[in-house]
Amino acid sequence: MQDFVSYNPTKLIFGKNTLEKLGKEALNYGKNALILIGKGSVKKNGVLDTVTKQLTQNNISFEIFEGIKSNPIYEDADSAVTHAKKMKADMVIAVGGGSVLDTAKAVCAGVYSDHSVWEFYTHTKSPVNALPLLTVLTLAATGSEMNYYTVIQNDTTKEKLAFGSPLVAPKVSFLNPEFTYSVDKYYTSCGVVDLISHCLEAYFDTSSSPLSDAIVADIIRLAMDYGKKIIDNPNDYETRANIMWLATTALNGSLSAGKRGGDWGVHQLEHGLSALFDIAHGAGLAIVYPAWLKHYHPQIKDKLKFLAKYVLGDDKADFIEVLEYFYGKIGVPIRLKQANIDENEYENIMSNWQKNKASGYFFKMTTQDYKGILSLMK
Amino acid sequence: MQDFVSYNPTKLIFGKNTLEKLGKEALNYGKNALILIGKGSVKKNGVLDTVTKQLTQNNISFEIFEGIKSNPIYEDADSAVTHAKKMKADMVIAVGGGSVLDTAKAVCAGVYSDHSVWEFYTHTKSPVNALPLLTVLTLAATGSEMNYYTVIQNDTTKEKLAFGSPLVAPKVSFLNPEFTYSVDKYYTSCGVVDLISHCLEAYFDTSSSPLSDAIVADIIRLAMDYGKKIIDNPNDYETRANIMWLATTALNGSLSAGKRGGDWGVHQLEHGLSALFDIAHGAGLAIVYPAWLKHYHPQIKDKLKFLAKYVLGDDKADFIEVLEYFYGKIGVPIRLKQANIDENEYENIMSNWQKNKASGYFFKMTTQDYKGILSLMK
Repeated sequence: MQDFVSYNPTKLIFGKNTLEKLGKEALNYGKNALILIGKGSVKKNGVLDTVTKQLTQNNISFEIFEGIKSNPIYEDADSAVTHAKKMKADMVIAVGGGSVLDTAKAVCAGVYSDHSVWEFYTHTKSPVNALPLLTVLTLAATGSEMNYYTVIQNDTTKEKLAFGSPLVAPKVSFLNPEFTYSVDKYYTSCGVVDLISHCLEAYFDTSSSPLSDAIVADIIRLAMDYGKKIIDNPNDYETRANIMWLATTALNGSLSAGKRGGDWGVHQLEHGLSALFDIAHGAGLAIVYPAWLKHYHPQIKDKLKFLAKYVLGDDKADFIEVLEYFYGKIGVPIRLKQANIDENEYENIMSNWQKNKASGYFFKMTTQDYKGILSLMK
Repeated sequence: MQDFVSYNPTKLIFGKNTLEKLGKEALNYGKNALILIGKGSVKKNGVLDTVTKQLTQNNISFEIFEGIKSNPIYEDADSAVTHAKKMKADMVIAVGGGSVLDTAKAVCAGVYSDHSVWEFYTHTKSPVNALPLLTVLTLAATGSEMNYYTVIQNDTTKEKLAFGSPLVAPKVSFLNPEFTYSVDKYYTSCGVVDLISHCLEAYFDTSSSPLSDAIVADIIRLAMDYGKKIIDNPNDYETRANIMWLATTALNGSLSAGKRGGDWGVHQLEHGLSALFDIAHGAGLAIVYPAWLKHYHPQIKDKLKFLAKYVLGDDKADFIEVLEYFYGKIGVPIRLKQANIDENEYENIMSNWQKNKASGYFFKMTTQDYKGILSLMK
C-alpha cells in the first residue's frame, strides 16, 4: 500500500425528496446565489423550479446563468465568472450533469482571480480561494459531485484539460435518483461507461491496494448488472439509485486509498476524441478502453484475470470480450466507425494526442502506442 | 436503497512517516494541546516522543493526561475535561487505541459543558460544541479515528454506552501501520474480530444496498486473509497496513450508504460482557457473534449464503463454521468458558442485558432471545 491521504469534505445528501433540504443547507453559505444550468432540461422536468422555490422560501436571492454545453468550454465559465462578480454572488449552485458541475467549479475559483479560468487548466495559475459550491445532480456519470476535479475544453486549441483543488470540492451535493429518470437510454449508457472507466483508471495504477481493487471489481460488476437492467426499466428507482451511487463512489476517492492516484491514460486519449468530434465522453471511453486493454494485454494479464474472477465470477473468462459485449448491448459504440468517425480523421486524432502528449501515469505512451491503440479502435 | 447522508469531515493521513505532518496540521487548530494517552505503551515505543517533538518544533505547548484504561471509564474523561479547562487547551490530541480516542471525543465535547460527560452517553445532554480533535492511532480495530462515535463505561452501574455527534469527529487522524507492530498477537486478533463485527453489524441492517453489502464481504474476506498472515508476520508492513485500513473502512461510513445504519444488537450484548468482566471488546464480540448468527439463522439464511459466496468464494460453505474456525486459529475465545466466565455469572449477564434493554435495531431481542443466545455462548 502506498501512503495516502483520505479527505473528502463534501456532504452528500442522497435519496428521494432530498431537495427539501437545499434551502436550509444553502443558508449556511450566504444570501445570494448564482445558479448554473445547461441547455434547459432542468426547466422542463421541474428540477430548477424546486431549487428556486427552496431559495425563495429561505430568502436567498438568485440569478440564473444558462447554456453550459455538454462538452463544456472555458469561455462559458469566464462569462459566468463575470456574472457572479457583477451580482456579488456568495455561492454557486450547479444544477445539471458533469459539464455544469465542472464549469461551476471553475466559476467558484474564477471569482477570486483576474484572469481566464483556462489558466487553471493549463496550470499556469492556481486557485487562491473559491466561492462555496452546492450541486444538484441530474446525470449519473461524472463523480464531480463529490470530488475536487474539473475538466473543460478549449475549442480553439482543441484541448480538453483538468485541474483539481480541495477549494472547489462541493460543500453539499443533492442526489435524487428520480432526477435521472428523464435521461435517455444513450446518455444513461454513456454514464455507465464513464463510471466503469473511472474504476479501470484507478485499478491500472500498478501499486497494490487490495481493498481498493476489490471495490473496483464490485462497482464494475454492479454497473454491468444495473446497466443491463436500466435499458428496460428506465423509471425503476432502485436501478437508477444504484447506478447513481456507483458513479459517485467510482470517483470520490474510495478507490485511491493505498494507490498513487490511477493511470488516466485512457481519459487523456478520449479527451482528444471528444475535443475533436463533440461525441459524449462516455462514448469515447467505450471506444478507447477496449483498445487500450488489448494493446497492453501482455503487461496486464494478471490484473485482467483478477477482474475476470471478481467481476465476472470466472477467472477463465475474457474480461475484454465481455466488456465489449456489454457495451454493445447497452448501445454505445466500441469502434470509431460506429461513431461515424472515418479513416480521414485518424491523422487528426494522432496529432491531437501528440500535441497534448497524451499519456498515462503508469502506462507511458509513445507514438508507437498511439498507433497500436488507434488501429484497435477502427 | 434507503435515503442517506454521506459526510465524513476527517482528514486521514495514512502511511510511513505520517507524523512528520502533525505539527503543521496541529497549527491550524491552536497553540496549546492536551495530549491524552493510555497506560504508557506510547512512551515505550517512542510514538509520544515523536508527537511532542513535532509540537515543540511548531511552538505548540502541551500537557499530557495519562492513564486511560482499555475499557475506558467516564470518570477519566471528566478528570481530563477539568485538566483541559484549567490549561485552556485549544485542541486535544489522542495518542493510542480506541479507548483513548473515545475518551478524547468525550473530553472535546465536555470542555463546552458544565456536567459529567456521562450525560452525553445517557442522552440526557447533547454536545453544543467541541474542541478540535487530532488522533494518532496505535491499534487497528476501533474505527473511531474516522467517525463520530464514542463508547465509554460506567463501572458503578455496569453500563457501557455510546453517543455520536459530528462535533467530535477527528479533524485529522494519523495512521502509521508501523505503530501497530508492537501490539501483541492477542490484541491484534481482537482488533480483527472488532473490524469484522463492524462489517456484520452494518450488513445485518435488513435494508438493501448492493455496493455496501459487496464491500462488507470484501473487508471480511481480506480481514481473514491478513488476520491469518499477521500471526507469523507481526512486523510485515503490508499486512499491518491492510488490517489498519480495513478497520478504518469498516466503520467510517463506507458501509452505511443506502442503509439505515446497521443493527448493532451484538455490540449491545457485548457491552454487557465487557462492562461486567473487563475482557477485550474484540474477545467479547468473538463469543457473542457466532451465537447471535446461530440464534437468528432461520431469518438470515440468504444473507449468510451471500457471505459464503462473496467472502469464502463458495455459496455452499457454512459461514458461521468458518468464522468460528478462523477465530480459533487467531487465538480469541469463542465461548464464555474459554474466557474463564463460568455458569455462576450467567444470571449477571442476563440481568445486565435486561437492565440495559440490549437489542438490535432490526433484530429486536426479548428475554427469550437472550436465553437462546446465551445458551449458544456457553
